[in-house]
Order: sequence, then structure tokens, then C-alpha cells
Amino acid sequence: MAATAGPEIERLIGLLAKLPGMGPRSARRATLALLKRREQLLEPLAQALRDTADRVVSCSICGAPDTRDPCAVCSDDARDNGLVCVVEEAGALWAMERSGAFRGKYHVLGGLLSALDGVGPEALRVGELVGRARSGAVKEVVLALPATVDGQTTAHYLAERLKESGVEITSLARGVPVGGELDWLDDGTIVQALRARRPA
Amino acid sequence: MAATAGPEIERLIGLLAKLPGMGPRSARRATLALLKRREQLLEPLAQALRDTADRVVSCSICGAPDTRDPCAVCSDDARDNGLVCVVEEAGALWAMERSGAFRGKYHVLGGLLSALDGVGPEALRVGELVGRARSGAVKEVVLALPATVDGQTTAHYLAERLKESGVEITSLARGVPVGGELDWLDDGTIVQALRARRPA
Repeated sequence: MAATAGPEIERLIGLLAKLPGMGPRSARRATLALLKRREQLLEPLAQALRDTADRVVSCSICGAPDTRDPCAVCSDDARDNGLVCVVEEAGALWAMERSGAFRGKYHVLGGLLSALDGVGPEALRVGELVGRARSGAVKEVVLALPATVDGQTTAHYLAERLKESGVEITSLARGVPVGGELDWLDDGTIVQALRARRPA
Repeated sequence: MAATAGPEIERLIGLLAKLPGMGPRSARRATLALLKRREQLLEPLAQALRDTADRVVSCSICGAPDTRDPCAVCSDDARDNGLVCVVEEAGALWAMERSGAFRGKYHVLGGLLSALDGVGPEALRVGELVGRARSGAVKEVVLALPATVDGQTTAHYLAERLKESGVEITSLARGVPVGGELDWLDDGTIVQALRARRPA
């Protein structure tokens, strides 16, 4: 193929294939779409990637990606400084923001502890979190980590590390998701929902 | 979300979501992967898109995208000038090249005739094809168009238009694909494979 499409197109296909959810086949399709819609898609996407690469930085307080530092959330005085929600990645932060239910600040860990992948606390923004908890402004840390083995291991570890700072440590409730049919739920969720049952 | 991630990231997600096979959700995942792997993925992809946008042109002979004009195939003297394979898009050209079975030249139509989508012959590179057929160098035109209604309508139309030039007009054989089990094939394919049966 290198002989037909030229190295630029080959490189583009190879890089697009590395995006999550893409493979060599879908990367070729995407490249064809880009070449067919140069003005509407290729040019703007090239520009958007350039802008993102040039201007987006990690917030020095919470670690979220943004064009300003501190980020929009951290510099929003209308939000509760005493409440810090710990998330794995920016994707979880965006999901929390879409829910519109949280008005505190965030702390992006940058990953989860993982013995298998060799990810220790020093690879995550744990020290920064402990520092924020110790600073005195924080009253409660909400652990909004995934309900997976790594997520829960990380939550336990963080709870242990944060204990001495004296802040309240909570985590998201477990239970039946909205729209969830019991038939389709895994046993673990049903067990947790039953244990945490509340007066109707 | 605009309040949390900044307009650059929002624009990037919106543009990635327009790629075929992507949606808002996978575009967010892809953006997170890009932000997490800036050196290995974001920077090279921004550069590759820039290079493609700046350097890739349509070959003035066959219409294929390439960095040079005429393209690598059209300027390859080892290939048979008398044989021209007509394809819908560059993706089909790349597929033919991967097969390694074709050593002639190509003609990229840029689409298919479609009454529904209002695509007429003037929107495709039909005039250029007729011109090439008339030039005298071409002996045979292979119609390698998809086995769909639009593909076959286009093939019929092209055969009609090319008739007066006197070149031989062929099309790809129809039949059971390699690895195809009769149980899983549609009736149309079986009918065509039976009609075109050959001595074993």
C-alpha cells in the first residue's frame, strides 16, 4: 500500500488505528472520509488537534486538562471548595459534570493502582490529594472511582492515606442503576443493593 | 461540558465524532487517549493530519489521493497502460492493491450514480474516463464497482458510455467468496454462482 497512497496517508491511517475503538479497517474508512471532506473535516480536525496539542495543559490543582491553569472548575468561586471528588480520569469528571449533581471541586488521579500493570501510588496524583486534604479547606473527599477491583483497591488505599488528615471520606452509592432490570443485573450488584436497602 | 474542558477539547470531540464509525462517546474516549498520550499520539496525529491536508492532492489522471501528481500508480511505467480498473473510491483501489492481483492502472470515479441522493454523471469523473478510453492507449476497462443497486446502475451506465470508444469492457466475477459457506450466503449470490458455474 505504501506504493499507492504515499507515506503521509499511510502514517495517518497508522495513527488513527491506535485510537481506542479503531482498527486498521476503520482507520482507513476514517482517512477516506477525511480525504473526501477536506474543507469540512480534514482541515478543522488538523487545526483542532494542533490547538489541543499547543494549548491544553493539566490543571496544577486538580490535574484536569484545560486551556487555563487553574482550570475552569478550580477557578469557579461559586463551587464548594470544601468538597473534593476524586476521579480516575478526565472522562469521569466530564460524566460527573454532565449529571449536573456535583457542585464541588475535583481531583483527577490519572489512573488506578494496579499490581498487574505495575502502577504504584507514586505514578498517580496521590501526594497532591493528601496535600489538598491536609490544607484545611477540604471537609469531605468523595471517592468516585470505578466499581472494579483496581478501582476499589485504589479507594481503600486512598481512604487509608487520607485518614490522618481528618476529612470525611465518602464514596458513591452502589445499587441498581436507573433503568436497570433485575433480570439483567449481575449478582454482585443485587447483593450490594439489597444490603444498602432503604425505607421506601 | 464547555465549562469544564474548554472549547478546544469540545471542538476536537465534536470533529472526531463525525468520523465514520465514531460517535460522541467514542470521540470522548479517543480524546482522552490523545490527551493521555500527547507525545506518542496527539503530536504525531496533529502533524500527520497537517501533512495530509497540505500535501495530498488528487491525481489528475486517475483521481486517487497521493502526494504526487501523477500518483505513484499512474507514473509506474511497469504497469499496463492498456488496462484500466474503475473503482468507486480510493478505498477500493487500496483493496485491489492489497490483493496484488492487478497490474494495470486505475480510475477513481469519486462515488456512484444515485437517483436517491441526486448524484448524476456530472458529479463523478465519468467524462475523464471516457476521455481516457478514447485516447487509444486503453484496451480494456475493468468495472470493479460494488455489487449493490447503485454500483450496478453505475456499471451499466459506464458500459453504455464506453461502448462507442470500442474498448473491451469487463467486470469482476460474481460468485461464492473465499471461505463462504453456502448456508450463510444470500440467495442472490448462490443464483449468480450457479449461473456462472465452471468446469471443475
